[in-house]
Amino acid sequence: MRSTALLTDQYELTMLAAALGDGSAHRRCTFEVFARRLPNGRRYGVVAGTGRLVDALAHFRFEESELAIVAGFLDSKTIDWLRDYRFTGDIDGYPEGELYFPGSPILSVRGSFAECVLLETLALSILNHDSAIASAAARMVSAADGRRMIEMGSRRAHELAAPSCSRAAYLAGFDATSNLEAVRRFGVPGAGTSAHAFTLLHMGMAVGGADGVSKYSAADGAHEAAAFRGQIDALGIGTTLLVDTFDITQGVATAIAIAGPELGGVRIDSGDLGVLARQVRDQLDGLGATKTRIVVSGDLDEYAIAALRAEPVDAYGVGTSLVTGSGAPTAGMVYKLVEVDGLPVAKRSSHKESRGGTKKAIRLSRRTGTVVEEIVYPAAGNQPAANGFEVRELLAPLVRGGEPVDGLPTLADSRKLVARGLVSLPWEGLKLSAGEPAIPTTFVN
Amino acid sequence: MRSTALLTDQYELTMLAAALGDGSAHRRCTFEVFARRLPNGRRYGVVAGTGRLVDALAHFRFEESELAIVAGFLDSKTIDWLRDYRFTGDIDGYPEGELYFPGSPILSVRGSFAECVLLETLALSILNHDSAIASAAARMVSAADGRRMIEMGSRRAHELAAPSCSRAAYLAGFDATSNLEAVRRFGVPGAGTSAHAFTLLHMGMAVGGADGVSKYSAADGAHEAAAFRGQIDALGIGTTLLVDTFDITQGVATAIAIAGPELGGVRIDSGDLGVLARQVRDQLDGLGATKTRIVVSGDLDEYAIAALRAEPVDAYGVGTSLVTGSGAPTAGMVYKLVEVDGLPVAKRSSHKESRGGTKKAIRLSRRTGTVVEEIVYPAAGNQPAANGFEVRELLAPLVRGGEPVDGLPTLADSRKLVARGLVSLPWEGLKLSAGEPAIPTTFVN
Repeated sequence: MRSTALLTDQYELTMLAAALGDGSAHRRCTFEVFARRLPNGRRYGVVAGTGRLVDALAHFRFEESELAIVAGFLDSKTIDWLRDYRFTGDIDGYPEGELYFPGSPILSVRGSFAECVLLETLALSILNHDSAIASAAARMVSAADGRRMIEMGSRRAHELAAPSCSRAAYLAGFDATSNLEAVRRFGVPGAGTSAHAFTLLHMGMAVGGADGVSKYSAADGAHEAAAFRGQIDALGIGTTLLVDTFDITQGVATAIAIAGPELGGVRIDSGDLGVLARQVRDQLDGLGATKTRIVVSGDLDEYAIAALRAEPVDAYGVGTSLVTGSGAPTAGMVYKLVEVDGLPVAKRSSHKESRGGTKKAIRLSRRTGTVVEEIVYPAAGNQPAANGFEVRELLAPLVRGGEPVDGLPTLADSRKLVARGLVSLPWEGLKLSAGEPAIPTTFVN
Repeated sequence: MRSTALLTDQYELTMLAAALGDGSAHRRCTFEVFARRLPNGRRYGVVAGTGRLVDALAHFRFEESELAIVAGFLDSKTIDWLRDYRFTGDIDGYPEGELYFPGSPILSVRGSFAECVLLETLALSILNHDSAIASAAARMVSAADGRRMIEMGSRRAHELAAPSCSRAAYLAGFDATSNLEAVRRFGVPGAGTSAHAFTLLHMGMAVGGADGVSKYSAADGAHEAAAFRGQIDALGIGTTLLVDTFDITQGVATAIAIAGPELGGVRIDSGDLGVLARQVRDQLDGLGATKTRIVVSGDLDEYAIAALRAEPVDAYGVGTSLVTGSGAPTAGMVYKLVEVDGLPVAKRSSHKESRGGTKKAIRLSRRTGTVVEEIVYPAAGNQPAANGFEVRELLAPLVRGGEPVDGLPTLADSRKLVARGLVSLPWEGLKLSAGEPAIPTTFVN
């Protein structure tokens, strides 16, 4: 990884210069990351990106290439300070995969003003993006009720954001991704077989209608058969054939005629997916292909997934809505200075009030495991009384003295944490409709 | 730049393997990029990302590191083919900065199926992202009516997408960015001075209310003054001071008291920006600071920008709405196989019909420069009659024999092209409200 230091807003560096100039740069500070609200009436959010942030922190260095850029607007004293910059402070945070609610102190960054302020943009970019995707993904996973989920939205995301989308989706419970860079970098299982172009390619010399364009015609079955034959020869009988390029009923018939009843799966990418899934299931069963899976895709979001719950769908392919956070492409988290030299600070501004002071948080649950409340309280104070509920501390050490702590959650750990988190919600918390956060958060002064 | 080859969906490679297996891989194909519709009732879109795509193409190589990943699901013949892969075909496209409408053939990629199919994901990722941002940005620039526009949305975008957001915004007419990587990589002018944290930092030892949190108090003016002094000492009198941490009227008074009437600017980041801008302008003028600029920021989108048109605002800082495409985070473009061995092909599927064949496009305009129609027609046919209108061909060569052509548009060229495009629209085309595309597109068979 190259230096991450310029993935930063210019004003972090001009503030640094001014603070080095007047001596305030060395005051001990706490910055806190939190979301003032959940987007679009969501009931919960999923923390994601923490692991990527810790990795990016190790590469936050100003080498000569980076210094050359900031030298355009900074004095030489600041440049010299940046040359030696290493974050040496401490970071606590909600473990990746933990649920969060409005005001949850997701990240607590402590050190000198100078070393902490520089991390604002990078921390927010990563956490806002990955948490937005993971939060949408968790709703889709919950709606899919245990069926296989394949992330395939790379083409609708920035090319370098797409692997992070795959990672966040996997973290939240998706099973696989189309994105090969996510396979390489994060070990997410890969998936994918063919697109309509592959069937059309096999139309070869055929000419159909009067306009010279081959559309549905008696010859389509033959071309589709050629495409399916080519795919099965290359990828084996377990592959998934895309059956809706022309006529789905004919496509399914051709698929089984070519592959036999042991065919792995068929994919439907258009039309009324519920109606088609039932029809295709009946047709497959009638042909003896009772184990051939049905994969559906095409503009699915959590609502469409939920609407298909009663249908014989075995797997969902989800693209655009996943990588755009299903209407909430950013988690809207902020990075706020909350404490200076041991004293709480807070901005006073209409609609944007913040709570000062370094904080901790606990989540209370019944003995059944159902959560009932989150309590955010001053880190310097005592843990609030639990009134007989089970108590879980939410902040864990991530970085100490600038170095990642041992035993940070793996992606597998985070997957389990999301799954446990969803199970812990009261039933209203899993509703897809807009509403209040699943549990209330109490702020103790 | 490292290899871009894995920024790709797995199915592009499984299709390649199947096509190499059955011999269809070498058929001559045209793939076309287009958008079926504009998002959210938009009147026009702005093509962006083309320059980045051409750059990324040069790095689309399968080295051993990439081959190791795809070897997990590909046969050795395909692996060998990938080892030598270079795109050797031709690409034509709408120049970066050109306007587009539904069905505009924005990119035309020609070569063997094998070499073209591999580029689908990368091409769409780049064009969908950058065009979404540029399209939103152009609406904001149009709404700002010539006032300075600063892009500051990095914290609400993936850290590696943020520089591309800055580039797309600049291309569409923004003046500057907060993102330092965009300064380095694309030469976008940088901007940025300070955040509320810098003022709060200077509260130092102060303690205010009964809860121990310093909020608005008589002492705030002193701390704000210290912060302003530090900033001016470091950044000079031309800097922009953030005046809304506590009370704006006091903040402005303190700013001018410290800086004098030559202060460069003040920024307001919260509250009713229209009311506050007028009030602050009056106050500044009364203090003799008649040339001090007013910068506003805080959840601005094109509608909020337009609503401030009558107010004394000198510059806008735009973040979240810009980097999320103001409600349309992806342009929704597709990459479709339209021609095989000289014959048009098209999928038949409800709601997703495509038009077969390699295409060209022209835009007709009156002698005044106002555009009236776009015509898309078969590349092999004659250019349609212009009926007395001025004619402009929209597709230009981008790549020949796998290599970029000379003289591709610079960012400066593209900025001019966007500006000219906006001026060329009929007046309804610049309306921010949802409606029909600014001009109709005619498809000639």
